[in-house]
Amino acid sequence: MSRYLTNKLLGLKAYVPGEQPQDKQYIKLNTNESPFATSDGVVKAVNEQKIRNLRLYCDPECKALKTELARVYKTTTDRIFVSNGSDEILNFAFMAYGQNGVAFADITYGFYSVFANLYNLQTEIIPLSEDFSLNVEGFFGKNKLIVIANPNAPTGKEISLEDIEKIVVSNPNNIVVIDEAYVDFGGTSCSKLTEKYDNLLCVQTFSKSRSMAGARLGFAIANAKIIEDLDKIKYSTNPYNVNSLTQVAGAFALIDNDYYMQNAKRIVENRNYTALELKKLNFNVLDSKANFIFAKTDKISGRNLYLKLKDEGILVRHFDKERIKDFIRITIGSKEEMQIFIQKIKEILKN
Amino acid sequence: MSRYLTNKLLGLKAYVPGEQPQDKQYIKLNTNESPFATSDGVVKAVNEQKIRNLRLYCDPECKALKTELARVYKTTTDRIFVSNGSDEILNFAFMAYGQNGVAFADITYGFYSVFANLYNLQTEIIPLSEDFSLNVEGFFGKNKLIVIANPNAPTGKEISLEDIEKIVVSNPNNIVVIDEAYVDFGGTSCSKLTEKYDNLLCVQTFSKSRSMAGARLGFAIANAKIIEDLDKIKYSTNPYNVNSLTQVAGAFALIDNDYYMQNAKRIVENRNYTALELKKLNFNVLDSKANFIFAKTDKISGRNLYLKLKDEGILVRHFDKERIKDFIRITIGSKEEMQIFIQKIKEILKN
Repeated sequence: MSRYLTNKLLGLKAYVPGEQPQDKQYIKLNTNESPFATSDGVVKAVNEQKIRNLRLYCDPECKALKTELARVYKTTTDRIFVSNGSDEILNFAFMAYGQNGVAFADITYGFYSVFANLYNLQTEIIPLSEDFSLNVEGFFGKNKLIVIANPNAPTGKEISLEDIEKIVVSNPNNIVVIDEAYVDFGGTSCSKLTEKYDNLLCVQTFSKSRSMAGARLGFAIANAKIIEDLDKIKYSTNPYNVNSLTQVAGAFALIDNDYYMQNAKRIVENRNYTALELKKLNFNVLDSKANFIFAKTDKISGRNLYLKLKDEGILVRHFDKERIKDFIRITIGSKEEMQIFIQKIKEILKN
Repeated sequence: MSRYLTNKLLGLKAYVPGEQPQDKQYIKLNTNESPFATSDGVVKAVNEQKIRNLRLYCDPECKALKTELARVYKTTTDRIFVSNGSDEILNFAFMAYGQNGVAFADITYGFYSVFANLYNLQTEIIPLSEDFSLNVEGFFGKNKLIVIANPNAPTGKEISLEDIEKIVVSNPNNIVVIDEAYVDFGGTSCSKLTEKYDNLLCVQTFSKSRSMAGARLGFAIANAKIIEDLDKIKYSTNPYNVNSLTQVAGAFALIDNDYYMQNAKRIVENRNYTALELKKLNFNVLDSKANFIFAKTDKISGRNLYLKLKDEGILVRHFDKERIKDFIRITIGSKEEMQIFIQKIKEILKN
């Protein structure tokens, strides 16, 4: 750190992305990426002409991409915001709506506390129940920004649209952010509820179900006035936030939406297979609606299981946080990858 | 704007990007883009495998790209930061180093005042001299963040490395940002000075000389501790800020660096041609080291000239700001484009 850095940022604790070791070829089940390649339509769309034309600025309004999003999500383009990954939207939401403080769960996406810290927001942590369910009533009448990942990470557990609606109704004077990064794997989106409530911000991403983690593309659906707020911040920080190849890749991923939703179904099948096999081995497996599962066993600590799997060429994610230190989070890959994973688990437990 | 937006952002005046009208095909001389396509190496590098692999997160450390930057700029990777366009670096610099206020010129890149406003920084405006030269002494001993575009925009005028060094030396307790977006068109970079001074932050972009405006890629060269500060903010806002196709395009643009520097020389030739022709028509043309020129004539107002050129299918940029409202800013395109431009100017002046 330099001696010039403002005091405000001295205590900042940055987010730590999942490891990307380069020492050998791993089966990567640690960062919730898709095992499926992008579609033929995306490959064709990012063509030589588009690459030659990188000389021109991208469309700051992302019109073609928003038109496709509006079609797929049955809404209008003025109710859509797109961004350089969905973290950018979360960042903007904390900046725009955190003035009365922010409330989120103790076990959830690790970036929420980083943003709260960045903007020096008063933070209320609402612990998950014993069984890692969201404490829905705990979010009633908070009068501050509420941020909920649904399905939650790293637990994979979901709350119902009815519960979301109760939280939204009980907080009429603040924004409720529902972070739906993992919604396409069997969850239910609140995007339609944004037509009824002007304080609901639904955030999604192309990183998981649409195989575009490396392209960086997030989007939000909300009341048009919320979108105006987000646009105001975008045009005051980085008007050309989504590059032109990502814009075209995103538009064509939506044209090929059936392919990606088919892939999501295959992930759900592989998730069911993996959960079942782990349960046969007496793992405690949380009920997941995401492209990962969160599981633990009495036979080996979470940290040791993570390390032994890494030795065997399989990366999963382990969190040191006390309450979840016994668990590992396993991204759901291809059927073959999950079969190898289960085989390795059996071998590790045998020794 | 929604009723939930924090008071802090209510007065925010966003940046207005150059217009991108879609009603017909224009000769675009309004957003300082390059008339030259990206190189063959870039087209080959952004291949099918890279697009299929968008499913994987990009490298948050941007190692391969930084290695190429270090080679071309004869430095080390720990002294380099890369970003989603250079505006992102400017944003981070205002956030990190503006605590004692910020000083910049009255006529310069319009985004500086937007960032100052965003972070509510006390701002000192140091007017350019009568002839639009930077008031170098005006920046001495400021004890606040200093931001200078060099060459300046929209004037195109440059200050010397000696003058930059004087400003840096006289401000030992604050950061001096030199925004070199346009440096490759005959300017001199301060990047080497960053080895001598730990308070100098040199910012560049791939948008202009490397024909990658649509790819969004900026970079900074500075003391490693400054880079640590910028990394801290990046990992607290958007760790995967540069997508994987832009990372690979950037690396291969540097491998093809000769092509782009050759193009920059052609731009300089076209600039000299355009300036000479305008002077023959009695225009006042500022001495530009950038890929644009700033010029005015007594015969027609800046706004009317801009409008008449637009009617004729040529877009240039006009600013309403009082001090420069007589000028138009003309991006330097291909020789053919500049010949058409001069021809149209002659016709407009005749009528």
